[in-house]
Amino acid sequence: MHEADHEAAGGSRRPNFVTHLECGMTGARLEAGRVHGLSPDGWPILVRYDLQAAKARVDRDAVWARGGGFWKWRELLPVREADNVVALGEVDTPLVSVGPGVWAKDEGRLPTGSFKARGLAVAVAMAKELGLTRLAMPTNGNAGAALSAYAARAGLSATAVCPDDTPEINLRETALQGAEVLRANGLIHQCGAWVKARAEEGRWFDFSTLKEPYRIEGKKTMGLELAAQWGWALPDVIFYPTGGGTGLIGMWKAFAELIELGWLDDESRPKMVAVQAEGCAPIVRAWKAGERHAAEWKDATTVAMGIRVPKAIGDFLILDAVRESGGWAQAVSDAALLDARARCAAESGLLLCPEGAACLAAYEACRADGRVAASDSAVVFNCATGLKYPMPEVTTRLDLNS
Amino acid sequence: MHEADHEAAGGSRRPNFVTHLECGMTGARLEAGRVHGLSPDGWPILVRYDLQAAKARVDRDAVWARGGGFWKWRELLPVREADNVVALGEVDTPLVSVGPGVWAKDEGRLPTGSFKARGLAVAVAMAKELGLTRLAMPTNGNAGAALSAYAARAGLSATAVCPDDTPEINLRETALQGAEVLRANGLIHQCGAWVKARAEEGRWFDFSTLKEPYRIEGKKTMGLELAAQWGWALPDVIFYPTGGGTGLIGMWKAFAELIELGWLDDESRPKMVAVQAEGCAPIVRAWKAGERHAAEWKDATTVAMGIRVPKAIGDFLILDAVRESGGWAQAVSDAALLDARARCAAESGLLLCPEGAACLAAYEACRADGRVAASDSAVVFNCATGLKYPMPEVTTRLDLNS
Repeated sequence: MHEADHEAAGGSRRPNFVTHLECGMTGARLEAGRVHGLSPDGWPILVRYDLQAAKARVDRDAVWARGGGFWKWRELLPVREADNVVALGEVDTPLVSVGPGVWAKDEGRLPTGSFKARGLAVAVAMAKELGLTRLAMPTNGNAGAALSAYAARAGLSATAVCPDDTPEINLRETALQGAEVLRANGLIHQCGAWVKARAEEGRWFDFSTLKEPYRIEGKKTMGLELAAQWGWALPDVIFYPTGGGTGLIGMWKAFAELIELGWLDDESRPKMVAVQAEGCAPIVRAWKAGERHAAEWKDATTVAMGIRVPKAIGDFLILDAVRESGGWAQAVSDAALLDARARCAAESGLLLCPEGAACLAAYEACRADGRVAASDSAVVFNCATGLKYPMPEVTTRLDLNS
Repeated sequence: MHEADHEAAGGSRRPNFVTHLECGMTGARLEAGRVHGLSPDGWPILVRYDLQAAKARVDRDAVWARGGGFWKWRELLPVREADNVVALGEVDTPLVSVGPGVWAKDEGRLPTGSFKARGLAVAVAMAKELGLTRLAMPTNGNAGAALSAYAARAGLSATAVCPDDTPEINLRETALQGAEVLRANGLIHQCGAWVKARAEEGRWFDFSTLKEPYRIEGKKTMGLELAAQWGWALPDVIFYPTGGGTGLIGMWKAFAELIELGWLDDESRPKMVAVQAEGCAPIVRAWKAGERHAAEWKDATTVAMGIRVPKAIGDFLILDAVRESGGWAQAVSDAALLDARARCAAESGLLLCPEGAACLAAYEACRADGRVAASDSAVVFNCATGLKYPMPEVTTRLDLNS
């Protein structure tokens, strides 16, 4: 193991402050150190820590000075044995200025080129720690790629079931990294039902979004990392592309944990804005209607495949966080996000993914209508490298002999 | 400017130790702070620093503790004014274990997804500092993308002249980031001649590899960063994909500077291995023949476009460094590099670019024939994200209704 990896992994034994797990809906207590999917009541599970003990024993600046990207937050992650850490060269993702008062957090710099690395690295490490060997999930692309790479690294078997129209590059990278890839004639929730049925037959463990407790812990490192980068404070507003919503839920959990740890010098939490596409906006509809759950969106369609999620199992956790933060849910058109993508590339030199561009378009709309003031600081999450997505053709030809 | 960018930029004024420039062939002295292309004798130009003054005033560990990726090495870079620094979220690229004793330095994590960011960021910053406004270059892909992004960020105009068969993704990202992109009916050296002719007419400044003095300074940060990551020492062997060779030359320059600074605890320098493709191996041919210059390779062909460079203007600097290091030049077949790429992805979870895979294939061949011992530590440079390159199709279909 390389020095930096070893340092982040924490030597052979990691101090661990996990006390228990609990049902995200009822709060019912569940035992740590055992395999869990959804709670007995069928809801996503959250991991709980003894944060007062961590507060007494862990120094925030010593943690932030470590190498190893998101693995540096080991006292706030569930992995117990350093040998179970699965590392592929994680880095802290940079904040890139994309306008006055607005920064893109460029998650495309992570292994496999997307924020999915955070969640899947931790989930795969926990699968290894708990003795699972065969993992499967439905995926629109980036999650499958991250699962495949980390499972290969960990020596576990992985299967990705993908809608027919999943981007070709995602299918190919996922397969090349060792996973079984199946192109299926259905949308992601239909693929999920197929995976679930076979999980119940014992063919594999169901690794779907929020159907195991640990992906959210990996995603929460976006919030921890952002706080440290911001000088142990937080921006005024966060625009987050919302499909399954694990990252938004995870960041909101991270902010609460940071406050309990006393690690924030300024405990003001950001307004959380859940960004969706007009062609698939179940959370926006539910937020506007004042509902706690979001009904399935029919005939979902958008170029931003990562947020083409008609039904999110963690809908109530997303909507709770958005409301508690004083934020909102907002939909943008495909035309607006593609326009924001092109302008950001040409003016700022940063190529966003469509989902990241949706956040920038949402930010711009809010600056225009006053929901975000000129004095507000904002962060938009660019959840993947822009290189994985279609770009306009280049037609200008030059005859060197002319 | 974000805090981390500002810190790396060094406030408004950067301590700068540049004394002069010099011809890379004759050593003839040239004045700093003025626009230079090639030396008056037609050779690449190198930047020289007062390293004894830097040694007295700069602390290596304080430098390494900074944020800002390669911009952190500001005392060893030529940019004088912090306002001229052009930043897009640079990170230190990770070392990822890809076998016992061998690590891939994953340059795909940089802005625009390749090591070209290092050289072009510094070259564009210097163009801005020296008052150049219109830049042009021939490119097989990644250099054009980096030029485009950093020039957009700096507010400069950029033109990329690309061989017809440049990968579609490179053409498109370069154009989307604001550069003029011209698809031309010729190879890279023919595109270069066309750019040069128009530079002489005053249409733009010729930004070709090694035809301005600063790209090599950016590339040299690969060597500085590697030394710091390695605990102020260096691995036994470095495998480097060699097209124009700027990175190999730059790293060799970095190692000499680190020794003069007294920053290496172990001053043993690595054997430098210049890796090329069998279908385009001018440096390998010259190395074997004991020549100091490498004649143009006819009918160059390889899937590794980044090293499809038939004629390198810095050939003598590459060959000098390889020989001085006790290293060698080595060619691998396209079949071998594609095989190494697939195995590394499936076994280690890391998707290499073809040029990085060529280095891994070369390393494996050297372990097999004993040129590299089991006890040797080796680093292979993965010069770009593997996502930009073709991957095998996925054909496995699943009928959810069956």
